[in-house]
Amino acid sequence: MADDRVLIVDGAQHHKWTRETFEDLREGDFSALNITLAIWENATETLSEIGMWYRRFDEFSDLIMPVYTSEDIRAAFEAKKTGILFGFQNTSPIEDNIEFVAVFAKLGVRVMQLTYNTQNLIGCGCYEPNDSGLTYFGRDVISEMNRHGVIIDLSHTGERTSMDAIEASTQPVAITHANPLWWKDVQRNKSEDMMRALAENGGVMGLGTYPNLFAPDGTVEQFCDMVARTVDFMGIDHVGLGSDHNTGFLPDEKRYWARGRWSREVPKFMSAKGFHSPKWPAIDWPEWCEKPSGLRVIPNGLREHGFNNEEVTKIMGGNYLRLIDQVSSAAN
Amino acid sequence: MADDRVLIVDGAQHHKWTRETFEDLREGDFSALNITLAIWENATETLSEIGMWYRRFDEFSDLIMPVYTSEDIRAAFEAKKTGILFGFQNTSPIEDNIEFVAVFAKLGVRVMQLTYNTQNLIGCGCYEPNDSGLTYFGRDVISEMNRHGVIIDLSHTGERTSMDAIEASTQPVAITHANPLWWKDVQRNKSEDMMRALAENGGVMGLGTYPNLFAPDGTVEQFCDMVARTVDFMGIDHVGLGSDHNTGFLPDEKRYWARGRWSREVPKFMSAKGFHSPKWPAIDWPEWCEKPSGLRVIPNGLREHGFNNEEVTKIMGGNYLRLIDQVSSAAN
Repeated sequence: MADDRVLIVDGAQHHKWTRETFEDLREGDFSALNITLAIWENATETLSEIGMWYRRFDEFSDLIMPVYTSEDIRAAFEAKKTGILFGFQNTSPIEDNIEFVAVFAKLGVRVMQLTYNTQNLIGCGCYEPNDSGLTYFGRDVISEMNRHGVIIDLSHTGERTSMDAIEASTQPVAITHANPLWWKDVQRNKSEDMMRALAENGGVMGLGTYPNLFAPDGTVEQFCDMVARTVDFMGIDHVGLGSDHNTGFLPDEKRYWARGRWSREVPKFMSAKGFHSPKWPAIDWPEWCEKPSGLRVIPNGLREHGFNNEEVTKIMGGNYLRLIDQVSSAAN
Repeated sequence: MADDRVLIVDGAQHHKWTRETFEDLREGDFSALNITLAIWENATETLSEIGMWYRRFDEFSDLIMPVYTSEDIRAAFEAKKTGILFGFQNTSPIEDNIEFVAVFAKLGVRVMQLTYNTQNLIGCGCYEPNDSGLTYFGRDVISEMNRHGVIIDLSHTGERTSMDAIEASTQPVAITHANPLWWKDVQRNKSEDMMRALAENGGVMGLGTYPNLFAPDGTVEQFCDMVARTVDFMGIDHVGLGSDHNTGFLPDEKRYWARGRWSREVPKFMSAKGFHSPKWPAIDWPEWCEKPSGLRVIPNGLREHGFNNEEVTKIMGGNYLRLIDQVSSAAN
């Protein structure tokens, strides 16, 4: 049975972090999760959240460990602990300060999504009326991310800004959590042009079971079918997992994801093009992956779908490890 | 001679504030200046600057006074003091918080420029490669500005964002400091489309002697000629003064205006289309207005150009007073 273990990296999970959560993540046998330090938070608020993680690393050292490199993630796999990889879902922590990329990289942040859903100083999110493309500040920030080994994440970023970012970056970039538009036609999912550009650039796209991007009643077979079709399109080296799993949040906390402090209402545009299930902020996860540990059936699902062990290893985590290595080694 | 006094409002001045500055402003007989609390500053930094003004109001009470309304400005005129009107040159103090419009309005901020030179959360500055137009957050912010009697300023804002803003605002808006593009073809100056939309909306455009937007060796006669031609185009009710005068800043402080914290170099795009004189950050003011007090010759210059007293009164301050009254009375 030990031989059946496959190293699993999940491109996006975001939970209320309790012992029960961390125990469930061990059930799921995750070796690394790209977790969310910031959605709308500024620099100070993000430092505070990093401080909270220092406490968690102490308190839950039997279950989790910080990971910064592919070696760390392999060590987490051996130790059967869940590796915590620091990520941003927005560049709000950078504020307007070019030096803050280096500061947060020094603190261990390895993944930075350029924008959340809306316009920021760097570029445009996927839900704005017009996509500004990458700004001048954005170009400098990308160059700093390249220089400091930070993975650029485009999951919630608008298409024009994303295309600009792929062109501006000297390193491959990631979409840590989104699905193809042809799987589900919602504004957060990605066009073929986007996926093609990402693959040509050497990047990785993490596919997810988040119901609004996948299917509220989607089966593991359907998920593996989506993976297979995406591999057919992008190639075996460019597809990973990005479940976008989240548990434990109160409705008001989820509403904060949608509206931050910048709107009093849940923004109307977020109900357009299927963003919300009718019950949102309640989320109907498919039963088999209602808890993150349920995702553990995916490797077998992929094997049953016809993928060989090497391919399963790449999809479940190997492609992310390669990306982390490549982006890190380019840093100076 | 006392009868010759005309109430002067300047749409933009930004100085190192010393007793000498305030004494020179008395020489200039200004009854109100829209001063700059923030260019790139965030909320906390801006509160700190407001605190500094509380101190200045005490220390220099013989020369200056805070002004929030047209009545206050008329009182400053009678008292022969320089009225200080709180303004922003960026919405950076609002950060991402819709409630901060009300907070800063309560603190007396009466003018908020939507963007400085670059992209922000609200819209786009005049120097970015693409103009996003007004964002969703920007629309809500404008509605809050209308609700709290804040004058929307578009001086450094990109054309598309400006046009969106004029359409979104229920109140007239201002360009507190810029000149017509046909006067000098630099990216900060304004197109005829822009000026027409502003006038049709009931707004006011403040014309300036800042050399890069006017002429390093421009005479008072030339300035008055520019005013006259702008009045011909926009109408007598829509033109004011916006000198953009600044004194006392060190080169590094001026470089901060250009690059904030977001770039290590003075951004290249700012030397495009004539932004910089070759000697920038040194500024070659025309000799007659090397000090702000020099602007005092403008009312006579306008009379000599053929404007009657009523027209001079409107241009020198009356149009701004009307705008302040209108925007304030719409607040609830």
